Amino acid sequence: MEIKRPLLLISNDDGYQSKGIRQLVEMVSDFGDIIVCAPDDARSGFSCAFSAATPLRLHLRERRDGVEVWSCNGTPTDCVKMALSELCPRKPDMVIGGINHGDNASVNAHYSGTMGVTLEGCMKYIPSVAFSLCDHRDDADFEPLRPLIREMTAKVLAEGLPKGVCLNVNFPIVGENREFRGVRVCRMAQGTWGSEVTKCHHPRGYDYWWMVGRYTNDEPEAEDTDNWALTHGYIAITPTQIDLTAYSAMDLIRSWNLNHKS
Amino acid sequence: MEIKRPLLLISNDDGYQSKGIRQLVEMVSDFGDIIVCAPDDARSGFSCAFSAATPLRLHLRERRDGVEVWSCNGTPTDCVKMALSELCPRKPDMVIGGINHGDNASVNAHYSGTMGVTLEGCMKYIPSVAFSLCDHRDDADFEPLRPLIREMTAKVLAEGLPKGVCLNVNFPIVGENREFRGVRVCRMAQGTWGSEVTKCHHPRGYDYWWMVGRYTNDEPEAEDTDNWALTHGYIAITPTQIDLTAYSAMDLIRSWNLNHKS
Repeated sequence: MEIKRPLLLISNDDGYQSKGIRQLVEMVSDFGDIIVCAPDDARSGFSCAFSAATPLRLHLRERRDGVEVWSCNGTPTDCVKMALSELCPRKPDMVIGGINHGDNASVNAHYSGTMGVTLEGCMKYIPSVAFSLCDHRDDADFEPLRPLIREMTAKVLAEGLPKGVCLNVNFPIVGENREFRGVRVCRMAQGTWGSEVTKCHHPRGYDYWWMVGRYTNDEPEAEDTDNWALTHGYIAITPTQIDLTAYSAMDLIRSWNLNHKS
Repeated sequence: MEIKRPLLLISNDDGYQSKGIRQLVEMVSDFGDIIVCAPDDARSGFSCAFSAATPLRLHLRERRDGVEVWSCNGTPTDCVKMALSELCPRKPDMVIGGINHGDNASVNAHYSGTMGVTLEGCMKYIPSVAFSLCDHRDDADFEPLRPLIREMTAKVLAEGLPKGVCLNVNFPIVGENREFRGVRVCRMAQGTWGSEVTKCHHPRGYDYWWMVGRYTNDEPEAEDTDNWALTHGYIAITPTQIDLTAYSAMDLIRSWNLNHKS
């Protein structure tokens, strides 16, 4: 009887060459066979976007013991869809997004391509986890994340996750003693992006705008949130679900008695 | 005392010239002042993506009594952010996405740019609604939607929506008698996209892929879902929330006793 090794599908939104994804592969490669399919360049803020109108291409970038690295010209979500359809010899046992350069807590989960990867895996009923570090720098230090990433990968491979639920794991920047204060299982904080665009003037005489923005945590005192955990030095694990239904609002809308038949 | 008319911000993912958005503006223009800021071309499947790395531009396409129409080269979400920051003289009383050419029920809510518009409005604490018709055709007949769109717009302008909750409204194609069977307040169905990519061969000798796909409703018997409502001729209203937290999974993850301090 042939024993199949676990298969891990890894993608991100920073591109296949980013330090975060390369470190992640190195951290978990002994757990099984690894297929990386990641964007050919940065795709931050791509959410769950897929390419309805762009022809997609794949390039094999590296093949070594148990690890294949592919790049794709599409979105993070495209990468997962392409890998599942064209690259994976069997259904992966786990999808991992990351390690993202920058945090994906609170409403950033809606915009994040790393969460796009993870939600896509979850929508295919594959246990899926996103790892992000609150440090945007290209040379961010991911090494302190290793023990928890390895423990969580082992746990998820062994036990799976509930159907329709994935994990959004965010790490704060560690201080000089290189220690996290611990792990907290959190809910998404309510927060708002403001001052989101900056107007510039092109030498040819027209206006254009860059997306920028400043994030405000709208409930900074709420100790059960991901933002609170990160601000206070804890690793934040936010169980995240596919089902967007606002069950609490159903009775209200029913009370409107909308009943159009034509 | 100056009485301000309500301000409605309208966008979509089919582009500012599509029939769906033009019909929507015509249907609701007597409710207040209208600002349209929509993509300059089709952006289906753009989810909540925003343009982190592309300079954005705006073009005024039309200005008439109480209606301004702008196009933007960015994503649906960019359009809302740009309009809120640069075009709206005051905070809009309502954001409307649509009318989308094609359904946004079930997991499509994650991929939809029309829902991107609506979630963006909701994340800015503005009452927001998406309208979609299960008909992809450019010349789809939106006229049967008029009564409910007008009634819901009036209701939302008068009463608002709970914080963090928006509405995803999907209309089935009406039959020859042009009647809907009624309105149902629904949850998101669980469904899966499969056969998502089709491989092609370029004349220059390389492979490329198109994103396509077939949707399967994974719980076709569930009468409380949006998919069931649409399949059976009902209008589906799915209250949809910003908070993605899977509260039901928090105890499970806590039981893993992850407590890394470094």
